[in-house]
Amino acid sequence: MKVLVTGGAGFLGKRLTTRLLARPDIDEIVLLDMAPAKGLSDPRLRIVAGDIADPALMGRLIDGKTAGVFHLAAVLSGQSESDFDLGMRINVDASRLLLETCRKRGNRPRVVFTSSVAVYGGDLPDVVTDDLALRPASSYGTEKAIAELLLSDYSRRGFVDGRVMRLPTVSVRPGLPNSAASSFASGIIREPLNGVDAVCPVAPETRLWLLSPRRAAECLAHGFDLDADALGGQRAVNLPGITVTAGEMVEALRRVAGEETASRVRWERDPAIERIVGTWPGAWDTTRAEALGFKGDANFEQVVRAYMEDDLRR
Amino acid sequence: MKVLVTGGAGFLGKRLTTRLLARPDIDEIVLLDMAPAKGLSDPRLRIVAGDIADPALMGRLIDGKTAGVFHLAAVLSGQSESDFDLGMRINVDASRLLLETCRKRGNRPRVVFTSSVAVYGGDLPDVVTDDLALRPASSYGTEKAIAELLLSDYSRRGFVDGRVMRLPTVSVRPGLPNSAASSFASGIIREPLNGVDAVCPVAPETRLWLLSPRRAAECLAHGFDLDADALGGQRAVNLPGITVTAGEMVEALRRVAGEETASRVRWERDPAIERIVGTWPGAWDTTRAEALGFKGDANFEQVVRAYMEDDLRR
Repeated sequence: MKVLVTGGAGFLGKRLTTRLLARPDIDEIVLLDMAPAKGLSDPRLRIVAGDIADPALMGRLIDGKTAGVFHLAAVLSGQSESDFDLGMRINVDASRLLLETCRKRGNRPRVVFTSSVAVYGGDLPDVVTDDLALRPASSYGTEKAIAELLLSDYSRRGFVDGRVMRLPTVSVRPGLPNSAASSFASGIIREPLNGVDAVCPVAPETRLWLLSPRRAAECLAHGFDLDADALGGQRAVNLPGITVTAGEMVEALRRVAGEETASRVRWERDPAIERIVGTWPGAWDTTRAEALGFKGDANFEQVVRAYMEDDLRR
Repeated sequence: MKVLVTGGAGFLGKRLTTRLLARPDIDEIVLLDMAPAKGLSDPRLRIVAGDIADPALMGRLIDGKTAGVFHLAAVLSGQSESDFDLGMRINVDASRLLLETCRKRGNRPRVVFTSSVAVYGGDLPDVVTDDLALRPASSYGTEKAIAELLLSDYSRRGFVDGRVMRLPTVSVRPGLPNSAASSFASGIIREPLNGVDAVCPVAPETRLWLLSPRRAAECLAHGFDLDADALGGQRAVNLPGITVTAGEMVEALRRVAGEETASRVRWERDPAIERIVGTWPGAWDTTRAEALGFKGDANFEQVVRAYMEDDLRR
């Protein structure tokens, strides 16, 4: 089986790829990103740098042997808000190009598409259920909701066999801060553990809905393996997260790594970030995801420890 | 005030235009459609035939004086299902082009956009509430849902001041059958009243959610006049309809026009049409629309009589 992973140089793309390489049924993985993916090496890997919105490139990367696509590439929430055209170009147009390329090839690959808490907005209940209307309050959320609709209709028509994995905010991400409005949700743990000061731009009582990178990669692979019938015509799945406030995150850090580490977090509210993050749900109902076999984290302390085991270099 | 009406040669566009021409605050109405609108004459009218997906044309028609746009042009549900690319081109790409053209002009016009029952699908409750997730089960519904999302985000960003009017199935439409899957919902009344036989392709107990052309045009004009603040950040309004079964429609026709007329309806189920129409809601909650001042019809007999008064030529 040949698989394409877009956004393959990101932390989630690489973690997913490592999982996929452990499978005997995969012959080739094409990793596409703006810059070549680093730190991965395997004879079955083909690492490509290029623009996902380029039709010629997509036409070369998706061929008659492509049986699976993990579409992770995206312009993140902060940048989608500050550069509307770029967000539309990558999050909407490139997603549509990918689906169109699959349609033209005609072999109906499985397409796993990552979406986000940001598709929800407006007046939200404490716990979001599967039937709640999407009212995104950011361009990023709007673009993800549009791509979800496209994937569903392309699946209904039999052009692809798509699955939308709506991710909670992924924390603790390794690496550097990024342009997501939620970047702090990793930074306030990662930076202190690396001896660096961090700013938390939201109030301590702000609720976040979190999933660890380890579990996120597992969920994407599980979503790929699911039989389409199990989804019952509803292609989007709200993946299981845990509800944690920003204050509780730092408390968990204190318990795991001590007072000196936790004291590296400074509280300094940023209205632009609060405005975006405040429109996201603090929890959603995970009944369906769990019935479909998806697994989230047990608690945030475990998430901090998983980051230390998987990613922390001292 | 200068106003653009797309789909201006259609029955709803013309009826709306007649209403708008009665207003003293309108200096110019540009009526765009594939073919020139017929039967309307006024010095303030500019009738244009052209392709709504043509950027050069849209750039000429929307200028710095355009204060309002009624975007009614669409490829209808039946044709969107049979010609996927055409539906995407008109219902998604041309809608986006229209919004982009307004954005470039920079004068933030009011944009009234017509959407449809078809944005709903999947397992529906008896009465659809405003908070219910959109799970369109047709390409037409998908495309309308995408355009709704675009209009909402363009409004949130201040590029336009948009309002989405989700129309029940409009019945009784004058004129000829069209490519909408719901075309029969007018045909089974209109054709018999014109002495022509008609086929009803759905079972008599099929519930439809209907609004008369008279009320639909009123609702569009009312949606244009509403203050944006009244919408409370939620740009889409489910307009008030009435629930009628196909059987009850023919019964109303019998009461109004007699047995001979009603007997012109032949019942012959068409699975392709039932598949599309059967995914639409039979009713939705109209509390919000009514609080916003929108008015629907009292009952279907009144709708039949309104058609006879407004449109029937003997």
